[in-house]
Amino acid sequence: MNGRPQAPEVAIRRWSAGAWQEAGDRLAAEEPLELLLDGSPLSVVMRTPGSDIELALGLLWAERVVTERAQVREVLVSAESGEEEAALPVRADLLESNRVDVRLAAGGGGGRRPERSFLSSSACGVCGATTVESLALDFAPLAPGPSVRPALLLELAGRLRERQRLFDQTGGLHAAGLFSAADGELELLREDVGRHNAVDKVVGRSLLDDRLPLTGRLLVVSGRGGYEIVQKAVAAGIPLVAAVGAPSSLAVATARRFGLTLVGFLRDGRFNVYSAPERLT
Amino acid sequence: MNGRPQAPEVAIRRWSAGAWQEAGDRLAAEEPLELLLDGSPLSVVMRTPGSDIELALGLLWAERVVTERAQVREVLVSAESGEEEAALPVRADLLESNRVDVRLAAGGGGGRRPERSFLSSSACGVCGATTVESLALDFAPLAPGPSVRPALLLELAGRLRERQRLFDQTGGLHAAGLFSAADGELELLREDVGRHNAVDKVVGRSLLDDRLPLTGRLLVVSGRGGYEIVQKAVAAGIPLVAAVGAPSSLAVATARRFGLTLVGFLRDGRFNVYSAPERLT
Repeated sequence: MNGRPQAPEVAIRRWSAGAWQEAGDRLAAEEPLELLLDGSPLSVVMRTPGSDIELALGLLWAERVVTERAQVREVLVSAESGEEEAALPVRADLLESNRVDVRLAAGGGGGRRPERSFLSSSACGVCGATTVESLALDFAPLAPGPSVRPALLLELAGRLRERQRLFDQTGGLHAAGLFSAADGELELLREDVGRHNAVDKVVGRSLLDDRLPLTGRLLVVSGRGGYEIVQKAVAAGIPLVAAVGAPSSLAVATARRFGLTLVGFLRDGRFNVYSAPERLT
Repeated sequence: MNGRPQAPEVAIRRWSAGAWQEAGDRLAAEEPLELLLDGSPLSVVMRTPGSDIELALGLLWAERVVTERAQVREVLVSAESGEEEAALPVRADLLESNRVDVRLAAGGGGGRRPERSFLSSSACGVCGATTVESLALDFAPLAPGPSVRPALLLELAGRLRERQRLFDQTGGLHAAGLFSAADGELELLREDVGRHNAVDKVVGRSLLDDRLPLTGRLLVVSGRGGYEIVQKAVAAGIPLVAAVGAPSSLAVATARRFGLTLVGFLRDGRFNVYSAPERLT
């Protein structure tokens, strides 16, 4: 199911102005998704249901299990998910709900098989690693360019917020927006309780649409910019990431290592550039 | 190293009011911590360095690997970490930096050995699970009480924010504060790039101080209240969790299942109660 994320409504009590009231409240949907690879359990991801195939493929891309779309033979989902996909064969007759099974082409080359199960949550980005050395960092540095005007960047945060206001009635969803560096057009928006899931969905959609690597695009994320967001952007070839909140030290170090332009605190008409400032002219 | 989290300073460029300036900026420190159990790699956690022993023990508590302090024989850390701990033998002569190895007492009873490595990140809370069924949920329901005044709860968010302003120069740290339900006194505060890490540190500190289960306490967290925060609070016996931001649907369902009072949007003189409202009188 692509499109608007689910927002279940619950009865709550609200304390406001010194008094109780009964009310209804819409919640950001969070459910575990079990990701299988060729029928074997690989990971449990806490995510907002919807775009599960995109999420699975984006996660496998970031972990370098899948390095081109042709390596994916078919995807199995549950009938309840309602997931459809024009770019790949999808079977919806075998799995229980909240499961997705990515079947790879036999001898499909490329990609690394994970040595063991890896795990994920609403904000996990270092899946697949059980030692510090095994953090997935064997990516190519990003090529120079494009040039981005600071004034354009400032507009993007507003465009993301505006779209979020339309879609998120819960206040509990993170957003990842992919914009054209040339004109700032919003090309793709995904939302999820986990910011890194929203990025995985953007990358998974781009893989399905044969648009990787995402040169000439900018990624804007709500909230903070941690290591995992930068790692996923580097894996997808995105040259600039802008976070509405603060970056972490490891996010900055990783961005500098791969030549990614990392912007933080993109709000209120200002921003900070933590790496590769030459793209902002 | 307990106490103030590290905040490395980096040179940045700032765009403000239509002009560039060179500036320095303090970053929330994020580094991978490799957690070993009896010498075997168990997990990599993206965390803010400091209180590593608390973090390791809190994580093992939430995963039910450790169910009482006596099960922990000693903890190995790196000399660089500067970690000390009065409550447990700590050896700092063997490990490289960013590693912590928890050694269990032989035949120490209790606790489940994880079937396989589990993994974690700056915001992971479902470590140890590779299937939906294996999500750790075999906890006892919380006992009734205590009673909490709504006006007291409102004060706590302010107290947490005030303390955060003192400690966090980066804007990138999450906080978890443990308060007394009787008088709202702040008993323990931990900060981390990962909100769930801050909660693990609070629980780990409480295990070291022999204060588990944390009946009669309230946990206030910055940001959102996802599943993993509620799961960790239930595991520690905390009867009420208040988040400054939105809860997720699974957080609400889990809180209702175990009788935990879950409060969201605790700010601006108001809040929502999503479960077990009888504790707020």
